[in-house]
Amino acid sequence: MQKKPLILVTNDDGITAPGIRTLLEVMNEIGDVVVLAPDSPQSGMGHAITLDSTIYCENISTDDVPQNEFRCSGTPADCVKMAVSEIMDRKPDLCVSGINHGNNSSINVIYSGTMSAAIEAGIEGIPAIGFSLLDFSWNADFKPLKPIVKKIAQEVLKNGLPDGVVLNVNFPKVKKFEGIKICRQARANWVEEFDKRINPQGKEYYWLTGKFVNLDHGEDTDVWALENGFVSVVPVHFDLTAHHTIAELNQWDLK
Amino acid sequence: MQKKPLILVTNDDGITAPGIRTLLEVMNEIGDVVVLAPDSPQSGMGHAITLDSTIYCENISTDDVPQNEFRCSGTPADCVKMAVSEIMDRKPDLCVSGINHGNNSSINVIYSGTMSAAIEAGIEGIPAIGFSLLDFSWNADFKPLKPIVKKIAQEVLKNGLPDGVVLNVNFPKVKKFEGIKICRQARANWVEEFDKRINPQGKEYYWLTGKFVNLDHGEDTDVWALENGFVSVVPVHFDLTAHHTIAELNQWDLK
Repeated sequence: MQKKPLILVTNDDGITAPGIRTLLEVMNEIGDVVVLAPDSPQSGMGHAITLDSTIYCENISTDDVPQNEFRCSGTPADCVKMAVSEIMDRKPDLCVSGINHGNNSSINVIYSGTMSAAIEAGIEGIPAIGFSLLDFSWNADFKPLKPIVKKIAQEVLKNGLPDGVVLNVNFPKVKKFEGIKICRQARANWVEEFDKRINPQGKEYYWLTGKFVNLDHGEDTDVWALENGFVSVVPVHFDLTAHHTIAELNQWDLK
Repeated sequence: MQKKPLILVTNDDGITAPGIRTLLEVMNEIGDVVVLAPDSPQSGMGHAITLDSTIYCENISTDDVPQNEFRCSGTPADCVKMAVSEIMDRKPDLCVSGINHGNNSSINVIYSGTMSAAIEAGIEGIPAIGFSLLDFSWNADFKPLKPIVKKIAQEVLKNGLPDGVVLNVNFPKVKKFEGIKICRQARANWVEEFDKRINPQGKEYYWLTGKFVNLDHGEDTDVWALENGFVSVVPVHFDLTAHHTIAELNQWDLK
């Protein structure tokens, strides 16, 4: 009998979130599963790691479930480091992160805790996928995503991923998916609208809010795919070098 | 008389760090300066933003200095958003972040709060540079960096930057710089070594530590430049799409 793949599951909404519970159901059909996820929500954490404070990590496995479960006080990127370095007997064959409650397409990939976990796994040489659903609600319906999540995970296990690449998969909030599209990240940004308030001690403070502005209407972008009912798959890498600009910068007077 | 450029200065080591004070001295020679920086150290924050808690931002300007100074309870990326959206009258002509006490070359760019501030500015369409010195000590000697910091900032103001690109500048810890080299990000990772301890209540906890492992000895990399006494300049972009892999992924069976 062929050995089952070893799969690490994490997320940024915290270990109790319905999104990660759905992901676990799917991964238990495919392989042996270890969960190591934040003990509290970590949305917007980007690729933060914990340098100046302590990290707790507790085994909370029960007999009711097949997976081995750990909750961790660290960030999503910490969780992957902890799992690989301290908890798992060998390097996992796959790391999946999510399913995020909310949109990680386009520029959101930069702020995303979900994707930072997948990228951290990629940096450590583990094939990795981040999954997100464009529905922020805690009670979002993740069930229709299951066959596609399974299919993509199985394709990654079968084919591997190009060196230095992880997948950013987003699902639109629609009744029926039109299909799966390989895309590029749309150029977009957030226009901030800080909500200024006064605390009970009379001091000003702010809440960060904003409006997503898409500057890029290419039909090969993730935003277009999602607006048109497709599941978007963006291959993401962590070599941030803008290689095409090196020749131009070499013309500068920096001697 | 030509209008002086408007310059936003921030960092991740906190507003009192010697690195940002050096950067301020240089920027005051070039333009009108606004500082909006974290009120406490934010190293390793990656591109975190504050979604679930409040943000404070206080004007702490004094008559002793030419710049307008604000300290902020948020992350480096929050600081740039706050400055652009709430504090500054117009979009700055340049954003500089640092000078970081420590190395942001290679894969460190992903974890770096210094670079997340520069990248956030880039996302908002502001030419931006992150500066770092490969010396973690609080009392590092930043003075020899000043003419090069000035030169690079002036070149960016003169030429602009390619669309969607910011600069990641690192200085080696050497007596004399060999020159400035435009580089690509070296492929590297950290091998974690969690330091497990027991707290006074008898509970296990961890400190995240690790060893930097360079997997890439190309002479066009930032790590090579720094090891050979050069100042490294890497053009960094925030389109994370691995464009060269899209054709390959389109061969997969995802119908």
